[in-house]
Amino acid sequence: MFFHHNSFDLNYKEPFGALPTGSHLTLTVEAQDVTNVRLHTFFNQDEHYINMLPTHSPGKYSISLTLPKKPGLFWYDFRFESNGKKYGYGTQGDGIGGEGRIYEEITPSYQITIYDASRKVPKWYKEGIMYQIFPDRFAKGSTYQGKFFPNSLIHGDWNDKPHYFRKNDGSIAYWDYFGGNLEGIIEKLDYLKSLNISVLYLNPIFESRSNHKYDTADYKKISPEFGDEEIFKKLCAVAKKKGIHIILDGVFSHTGDDSIYFNRYNHYDSVGAYQSEDSPYHNWYRFTNFPDQFESWWGISSMPNTEEVNPDFSDYIYGSDDSVIRKWIRAGASGFRLDVADELPDEFIAGVKTALLEEKRSSVLIGEVWEDASNKIAYDVQRQYFMGHELDAVMNYPFRETFIRFFLGEITSRQTHRLMMSLYEHYPREQFMSNMNLIGSHDRTRILTVLSECADSCHNDEEREAFIIPDDKKEIGIARLKMLSLLQMTFPGVPCIYYGDEVGVDGFEDPYNRSTFPWGNENKEVYNHYMHITNLRNSHSALVRGAYVPISTHIDDIFAFLRSYEDETILCAFNRSKSEYLLFSHDMFRNVFGLNMDSDTRDDLSGFTIPPLSAKIYKIEATFSNLMKRYNPSSELSL
Amino acid sequence: MFFHHNSFDLNYKEPFGALPTGSHLTLTVEAQDVTNVRLHTFFNQDEHYINMLPTHSPGKYSISLTLPKKPGLFWYDFRFESNGKKYGYGTQGDGIGGEGRIYEEITPSYQITIYDASRKVPKWYKEGIMYQIFPDRFAKGSTYQGKFFPNSLIHGDWNDKPHYFRKNDGSIAYWDYFGGNLEGIIEKLDYLKSLNISVLYLNPIFESRSNHKYDTADYKKISPEFGDEEIFKKLCAVAKKKGIHIILDGVFSHTGDDSIYFNRYNHYDSVGAYQSEDSPYHNWYRFTNFPDQFESWWGISSMPNTEEVNPDFSDYIYGSDDSVIRKWIRAGASGFRLDVADELPDEFIAGVKTALLEEKRSSVLIGEVWEDASNKIAYDVQRQYFMGHELDAVMNYPFRETFIRFFLGEITSRQTHRLMMSLYEHYPREQFMSNMNLIGSHDRTRILTVLSECADSCHNDEEREAFIIPDDKKEIGIARLKMLSLLQMTFPGVPCIYYGDEVGVDGFEDPYNRSTFPWGNENKEVYNHYMHITNLRNSHSALVRGAYVPISTHIDDIFAFLRSYEDETILCAFNRSKSEYLLFSHDMFRNVFGLNMDSDTRDDLSGFTIPPLSAKIYKIEATFSNLMKRYNPSSELSL
Repeated sequence: MFFHHNSFDLNYKEPFGALPTGSHLTLTVEAQDVTNVRLHTFFNQDEHYINMLPTHSPGKYSISLTLPKKPGLFWYDFRFESNGKKYGYGTQGDGIGGEGRIYEEITPSYQITIYDASRKVPKWYKEGIMYQIFPDRFAKGSTYQGKFFPNSLIHGDWNDKPHYFRKNDGSIAYWDYFGGNLEGIIEKLDYLKSLNISVLYLNPIFESRSNHKYDTADYKKISPEFGDEEIFKKLCAVAKKKGIHIILDGVFSHTGDDSIYFNRYNHYDSVGAYQSEDSPYHNWYRFTNFPDQFESWWGISSMPNTEEVNPDFSDYIYGSDDSVIRKWIRAGASGFRLDVADELPDEFIAGVKTALLEEKRSSVLIGEVWEDASNKIAYDVQRQYFMGHELDAVMNYPFRETFIRFFLGEITSRQTHRLMMSLYEHYPREQFMSNMNLIGSHDRTRILTVLSECADSCHNDEEREAFIIPDDKKEIGIARLKMLSLLQMTFPGVPCIYYGDEVGVDGFEDPYNRSTFPWGNENKEVYNHYMHITNLRNSHSALVRGAYVPISTHIDDIFAFLRSYEDETILCAFNRSKSEYLLFSHDMFRNVFGLNMDSDTRDDLSGFTIPPLSAKIYKIEATFSNLMKRYNPSSELSL
Repeated sequence: MFFHHNSFDLNYKEPFGALPTGSHLTLTVEAQDVTNVRLHTFFNQDEHYINMLPTHSPGKYSISLTLPKKPGLFWYDFRFESNGKKYGYGTQGDGIGGEGRIYEEITPSYQITIYDASRKVPKWYKEGIMYQIFPDRFAKGSTYQGKFFPNSLIHGDWNDKPHYFRKNDGSIAYWDYFGGNLEGIIEKLDYLKSLNISVLYLNPIFESRSNHKYDTADYKKISPEFGDEEIFKKLCAVAKKKGIHIILDGVFSHTGDDSIYFNRYNHYDSVGAYQSEDSPYHNWYRFTNFPDQFESWWGISSMPNTEEVNPDFSDYIYGSDDSVIRKWIRAGASGFRLDVADELPDEFIAGVKTALLEEKRSSVLIGEVWEDASNKIAYDVQRQYFMGHELDAVMNYPFRETFIRFFLGEITSRQTHRLMMSLYEHYPREQFMSNMNLIGSHDRTRILTVLSECADSCHNDEEREAFIIPDDKKEIGIARLKMLSLLQMTFPGVPCIYYGDEVGVDGFEDPYNRSTFPWGNENKEVYNHYMHITNLRNSHSALVRGAYVPISTHIDDIFAFLRSYEDETILCAFNRSKSEYLLFSHDMFRNVFGLNMDSDTRDDLSGFTIPPLSAKIYKIEATFSNLMKRYNPSSELSL
């Protein structure tokens, strides 16, 4: 008995990956000693078994079908009999497509994401390079004097470490600030421009007392530590002239309790929801016992959850003409990143998206989703992020986690490929090409600390504040960072640089991952590397918008792929090990999954080496289909 | 047997009080049924017994003598016999003169301070009103941007409470700042001028990392949070134009360990004493085991004690032409307050004084001494502060402690008089008239909190930070503050207002006594009172430079005295109780100690009342000797 299908291979599933509504699809299997080969499909509540017919190739069964006209997740697997026994064939059970296996009982299905393809992601976003800024920590303006709320502490020395100042009960006694602000960002736009940045994602900037501002106090005001509406407009205008778009952080699943809406501490003139059941904001929240019991984000009572679908709230956020979304888009923003998208109802996200498109056709909406966003089930609901009416992109945390594991030697290049292929397959092409590929964020240990294998090296905050990465570890960490950042610049999707990563900033998890940009004290080696790799990306269309072809080297330590666009094809290979590898000399190099590449021509390639802990990027003067024949090692892109 | 002497009464000791070297002195006793009356004296190592002779008044013995030509403490008591038994007569044993008592054994002596009277305290100081500023907390300049050392935190809200941010081991992790600075003081000079301030005492302003700067890092630099040398010179110059003198805090008994001198953390380019035994600063310190064991202030190793008498140190501080003292006097300072004078050798203080006089004849030197400075024995050494070559004045903490106890009802007016008379008697007249009469300082709980009886009302810092004085207590506290501050303005000596006390600032001990001046949020009632009382003082010579005559009312709750200068005599009476008192109607009012006042004329006075918790200040149109006869209630000074 033999049965085989590989959803990553066009010989078995064509077209590849997620598909627009109503697409035609051909599925093929190879089988021997089997009978009654059927395709089993599941879409919404409809389940079907369809007979598959033998093709003119011996041992192959095939079926062509038209996918539903509605977006959704289309699931398939195969059923057959052998020696009178019933079998199924599905994925390997980890949610990843590609080669599957035979099951005797419950068979895990392959996923096809069916989406409404009418919406394209704007080019400025999907072909850009992004930069994330935690506004208090990036740069101080030369003239703006921030206004601070009570119990704010400003570090006198820009180079101090961030610190949580807590009360005995663990709550925050003081918020520490460094004095970064919007004017500071304006003054650094030329720096960002020179680094080839075209998209700025700002952590929240709306009024709130915390330094992170995820506990919004007033969605319609810039927090006074950072600036005001005029300065924000100026930032957008000056950035626009330099070809830089601004994306804001929209935090709508909850507000702060210390806000004009909830007003728990009577700091505002409004009648807040906490203060009276007659408050105009009463319907924004979910009180279980007024006023002291209410739903809150992760049970943190300083962040009461909002009732997003109540029109009182949704009109304020996106519905009405002077709503939050519309106000800031009109002020110059080019889009929003939606905080904790999993906690926002689809209806709400779709409403935000509609308002965005009404205000600015070229705006984008990016979701904070930590896993595969195509099939995310959150709070028992299958999310609709990528069906065509919600998100343009998500933060690609799987990218970060997967490649950290690869570069630290925890998974093989093949496992790495499978994980990335899964996203490639499940995400609509527009979303895969728009993935916010991050290696750092305000929610994760600094990448240099992780890659230096120091993330867990301290036991308490005093140790963490005093910690300095040992030189030997740092050397390896920087070598890995150079590889990973180059991978980020060459991989499909929008690379996002977390401020400071490009100059070698390290630090443990929050708050140490939010330390200040070390102006005047940058790691020049890392900075020069970043300058180089952002230039590299922007000067090669294949890296910006090219097709993606994963390549197996059969070496666990080497991750490689091709990017190809029109006449340009670029080979990218990363050697995580501490040994040099000679590639091509030992049958190492072939298309991982047989995807559109002629693997028979490999003998024509001369070998090339990759030194330890480094990468090679080769430009191949060839069209995609026969690139291997014309491979020319002399065209190595300088790194 | 009867024996009587009262050193406060000119009938028994003339002249009163401390006396210049070589003064003539007459001591008288009244005695009955005694023989062999002798005066017993002790001066340096010389002890004498001198026979006293009966006077032409029956029962009186007297002796006139010339005091030594050298300054020092001259001690006397009396010895006599009765019925063949030997007795002594001395003070009551608590170090206070006045009426004494008979002893059968060891007899405590009366003190006469003999001083070199060649030096007068400059008028600008002794006739001024002083104001103490903790520079970080008084006022922010409109343009100066302080530069801060690592681990400094600046409160974003001027109205936050100060806070110690400690490490687990109790040491300071961060110093909190509010951003007050010298430019801020310059900008508030008009405010101070309008409050009749003529002397500013600044807590330390030389470079150091702490917010209090008692751990000096560089004696020759203004700490960069506060300003620089140019700004300091400007402060002195602008202040001078307004008739305001600047007094600096000189902290010489120790330096910081984090200093150019000790340089424990290698923050400075110098070779510090901690770093090498070849350091030019090695002789400044007292190492018991180099480098980690050394003498330090109160055992706090961040403040290594200096070897004050080593010429390497003393030349740097005052001896050499570019010494610290000379530098800052030349820059515009008018004097120094010597921190922990008790820990500085007399030789060192005298050296500072000499340097001061050499640089500026009108400069002053004030000592931090917490007790009676005339007879202070510190580390087994009888201090020479007031002998004529050291201090012009001391911080009068006994004044503060005594009157707090009086106004809180802990001691009677008579006990209060005795404590003040003791200083009056022991201090040279110049020093008594120059006493820095403080009711608040950076080292004591805010006076309003004390007088509101709230000083001990909290158990931990969180409670202290949240504490607000209850209205009923505050009302009484303010009434007492008004009395005490009025007393301060009418009492002999230089009243010193601790910044903010004049606008009702409260707060517990350090750090809460160092909160910011509440610009825009002043207690107007208290402020108006202070404006009034400083005007009152400055418009009456008797209050500024008049003789002091304590008056007993025979009522525990009433403290009263006269001030008299030329034709002006002012009666000051303070009623601490919650009851109204009618004075003069019941034989209540007489000179406490019979000092130069005709007490027989009291019947000529009509009575007047003092309402509860208030004071009366009467101007008496009379020369001193017969003032009671001409007392005119209609001349009450408006309060």
